[in-house]
This record gives sequence, C-alpha cells and structure tokens, in this order.
Amino acid sequence: MDFRQRYNEYALLVDKYLDGFIRENVPKTLYEPARYILASRGKRIRPLLVLCTCESVGGRKEDALDAAAGIEILHNFTLVHDDIMDNAKARRGRSTVHTKWDHNVAILAGDVLLGLAYRALFRSASARIQEIGKIFTEGVIEVCEGQAYDKEFEYRKRVSLDDYLLMVRKKTGAMVAAATEIGALLGNSSNEERSALKTYGEIVGRAFQIQDDLLDVIADEEKFGKAIGGDIVEGKKTFLLLTALARATGSDRRLLRQVVDGGLSGKNNVAKVRKVYYQTGAIAAAEEQIGRDIQEAKKQIRVLKDSDSARMLLWFADMLLNRKS
Amino acid sequence: MDFRQRYNEYALLVDKYLDGFIRENVPKTLYEPARYILASRGKRIRPLLVLCTCESVGGRKEDALDAAAGIEILHNFTLVHDDIMDNAKARRGRSTVHTKWDHNVAILAGDVLLGLAYRALFRSASARIQEIGKIFTEGVIEVCEGQAYDKEFEYRKRVSLDDYLLMVRKKTGAMVAAATEIGALLGNSSNEERSALKTYGEIVGRAFQIQDDLLDVIADEEKFGKAIGGDIVEGKKTFLLLTALARATGSDRRLLRQVVDGGLSGKNNVAKVRKVYYQTGAIAAAEEQIGRDIQEAKKQIRVLKDSDSARMLLWFADMLLNRKS
Repeated sequence: MDFRQRYNEYALLVDKYLDGFIRENVPKTLYEPARYILASRGKRIRPLLVLCTCESVGGRKEDALDAAAGIEILHNFTLVHDDIMDNAKARRGRSTVHTKWDHNVAILAGDVLLGLAYRALFRSASARIQEIGKIFTEGVIEVCEGQAYDKEFEYRKRVSLDDYLLMVRKKTGAMVAAATEIGALLGNSSNEERSALKTYGEIVGRAFQIQDDLLDVIADEEKFGKAIGGDIVEGKKTFLLLTALARATGSDRRLLRQVVDGGLSGKNNVAKVRKVYYQTGAIAAAEEQIGRDIQEAKKQIRVLKDSDSARMLLWFADMLLNRKS
Repeated sequence: MDFRQRYNEYALLVDKYLDGFIRENVPKTLYEPARYILASRGKRIRPLLVLCTCESVGGRKEDALDAAAGIEILHNFTLVHDDIMDNAKARRGRSTVHTKWDHNVAILAGDVLLGLAYRALFRSASARIQEIGKIFTEGVIEVCEGQAYDKEFEYRKRVSLDDYLLMVRKKTGAMVAAATEIGALLGNSSNEERSALKTYGEIVGRAFQIQDDLLDVIADEEKFGKAIGGDIVEGKKTFLLLTALARATGSDRRLLRQVVDGGLSGKNNVAKVRKVYYQTGAIAAAEEQIGRDIQEAKKQIRVLKDSDSARMLLWFADMLLNRKS
C-alpha cells in the first residue's frame, strides 16, 4: 500500500469538507478571515489521525469525517489566536489573520472557528457523542493551558525540561490524543484499543514538537522553507536549549544564558549555539527521545488487529520521525 | 411568591457553582483571570432563565444547573473578548481582564472560558445532549456574528434600524434564546413549549438590549452607576440614534450625523442630542418597542401550565422593562 498517496487522499477529503463548510458570507469581517485560514491547507495531521484511527478499529472513515474536520478547525482556531499572541507575521507562506486584517478581527475569527469546530463535531452520528464532546472539550482546555505555559516560559528565568515536556503535552499532545481517542470512539473501539490509540496520539504529538525544535536547528534550509535558528534568535526555551543548559559549563553556559535572556541573532551566534547543542549532546538527546517516542507509539498499535489503517499508523509515526520540514 | 427573593436565591446557586468550578491553579496567567471574571458576579440573567424555564415545563432546577453555569461562563467569555475589542477599561466596577493583565492573557482567558463553558454543559445528564450541544454551539456562533456586525457598524456610514435589530438578535437574543430553549429541553418540554420558550428568550434578549440603549440616555445617573450618554460620546449606532436619524431634518439631522461620524462629547452636546431623541419620538419608539416585546414575550408563557416558575417568567419580563440599571 502507498501510504503517502493514501495520506494525500485523506487530506483532500478534509480539504473538500472544509472548503464547503462555511456557507455564510456575512458578516464579512468574520467569515472572510475564517475561510482564509481554513483554505491555507496545512499538513492535516490531526484529521488524518481521526480518520485512520476510526478505520483501524473497524469503523468507516465516512463516520469520522465530521469530527476530523472539527478537530482541524479547532487546530486552526489555536493558530489564529497563537499568532496574535506571538506577533507572528506569516503562517504557511501567507500573512497571518491579524496582519492581513487586524487584532480584533483575528480574535473574533478565532472565536467563531471554535464555534464552527463544535458545529462540525456535533454532526457526528454517535451514541457516544457526550463522551466525544467531553474529550474534545478537555482538549480545548489543555491547548489553552499549554499556550499559557508557553507564554509564561518566555518571562520565566528557570524552566526545567520537565516543565517543557508538560507544556508540550498540553499544547500539542492533548489535541493529537483527542484526535486519536475520538477516532477510536467513532469506530466503536474496545476500551483497550481506545486507550492504546490515545497514548499513541499523546506520544506522537510530543515527538512531533521535539522534532520541530530539532528541525529548527539542523534542517536543510531549502527543504525547511524558512531560516534555520529562529528559536535561538527568539530565545525560545526548546528541548535543545533546556537540555544543553543543564549540561553546559563555562563560556558555553554563558552563551546559552544569553539565548535564554532574550535570544541571540546573527548567523555567527546561531552557529555557535548550534555547536554547543551538538557538543553537549542535546541534539543526540532529542534524537534519542524522538526515537524512543516513536517506538513507544508504534508499540501501542500492536493492540489493534492488523489492517491497512493500523499499518498506516505505523508508517505515520515513522514519517514524522523522518520528516525534513 | 416573592420573585425577587427567588431570583436572588437562584443567582446565589449559580455563584456558588461558579466559585467552586475552576479547581486548577496553574498556569496562573490562565486561571487567575478566568476566576477573576467569574467572581465579578453580574446579573446572572441567562442562568436564571435556564433554571426557571426548566422548572416551568416540569423539570428540576438541579438538572439544569450545569447548563445554567455553562451559559453564564459562555457569557463571560464574550465579555472578556468584547472588552478587548471595545477597549473597555472597566466592567462591573472592576478593571477589565486585559487592563488588569494584558491583551494576550485576556485572549487566552476568554478562550479557556469557552472550553470551561462546554465542560459545564457536558456535565448535564440528558438524553438530548447532542441537541443541547448544537443549540449552545449555534449560540456561540451567533454571538460572534453579532459582535462582528457591532464592530462593522462602527465603521459603516449607513446602518439601518433593521441592521441594528439583526445585530441585537445575534449578539444578545441568540444566547438568551439558547438559555431558554436549553432549559426547556432539560425539563423535557413538549415541542410547543420549547418553541414558545425559545421565542420568549429571543424577544426578552432584544428588549433587554433596547432597554440598555434607552437607559444610557434617560437613566438616573445615581441608579445607573455610570455617566449618562456614553453611547452618544462613543457614537454608537443605537436604536435611538438610528430611529432619530431616520426622522430628523435640518440642524437636528446634522447634529445626529456628527454623533454617527465619531461621537459627540460634552454635557451640552449630550443634552442636545437627548432633546432630539425626545422630539423625534425616538425615545417613545424605543419605549413602545420594549413594551410590545414584553407583551409578546409574556404571551409565549400562556403555552405553559400555570406554576410559580411560569409566573416568574412573566415577572422577569416585567422586571426587565422596569429596571433602572
């Protein structure tokens, strides 16, 4: 089976659903930006996981499409609001909503996306809709918690690797875990399958974020599509920075403290920090963590009966590990 | 029956529920502002209506308390985000969230309140939870639409009274109608009762907003708790302004156009505009509209069996009509 092709087919299914989802045209300042962000594509990782996990326990992807779209719309809500908070100018190669319009428009567009996410979710025909709604909602709350931690960390001098991992679990892991758990429920999973798929999502979500941190430093700029070292320039407390900081001494440590204290710009500085990341073993530690996570995630899939969809979940975990952007 | 006392008892029930609702303490930048806005009390009109409508069709208020709290939390979400967009400094006699903290904190606190609103709602034990969730969600979307129209109207030169009424129906009516319809569903209403109570909520919500516009101009400053004429100073396109504008000629019309074009400040100017509101019959038109609405709302209650709760809904409509603040 060509999983890449299947991924593209599923993503297309979601894109089509989303293209036709917003039927309203007015108020313009609400629905134009909402439509704009939904049309900006993206990797569609979360909806793919809803569809694939539903099938992997014997369900039909048609029955999971509403929820898949709901999860993706919810993800787009977080992007619009996070971009305001992070002062981000561009996203997926296009202007962010608050840059193209303004802050007020972006706040409200994000809000309505959250409403639209629930609208899609509630179209699901499932006897377990209350459970599904609760999982979805706890995902919303955890994403907010994760983002709040992320912003708090910008001002906090001391952030441990554990703090970081908690933040990542909430900001990224929770919603991916919601995707896989909801997919399982929509496919009428057993409790064992549901729990395994939830864990799969949690771990994959975390590995995805650590991989993001890693790619920011070691990716090929061409393939990555943006400049290397953005996190270093911004002084973001990433897996790499926190791990290196716990290990470095002397001038290396002073260099890393400068990153923590507000970021370090300039190609030279970025290169120096990168060197410290290698020398302290932070790069290797991140790669090992991702490797362990992917193994652990794949182990969860053993609970499932063998099927194309189960094998696709294995492929998906490896693909995340090997991605270049 | 002392309805005022009963209202206070119900409000206390909701306050208690909300006081204990957020158990989380961290992240602090998320839960401190969320707790702060929920503790600021307010009139608790929407939750009261959930409880009272549930009882009015034969249900128990205990079964509606989760949803009542959910509706109130949802309302608080809109307050936090609207206050950012409106640059409001104070609310219920306290600093607004974005003033006390900052914009980012307020965006995220609003977001988590929306999540918490669904958390409360989903605690409801009802076989009709999917329907209830849909009504709640359509309420969220309509509130966003209403707020978007409200902001658009600030920049639009031409806004008709119909535009205004559409905005009010969405911004205020939709959520009040959601409250009464959800209350009905939780009380296992008949379809006729449900539809009557939904209409009751819609009309009461609209009348409440028009009354707000009216009070801003004719209230007793002492009782009102803030300066008269705020809407005139801000150039808000209210029921009064739009009605007066459609009727005024000559210098009166030019005066009103100044209000439309950016507001008019100064006690003298406010007094002049107020005089035009009286002379054109805009004040009388608003009072008539509210009077008709209240009659229409009360007519809906005839569908219900007589009970203390049904009579409380009649009292409530009259109370809104006669309020001074």
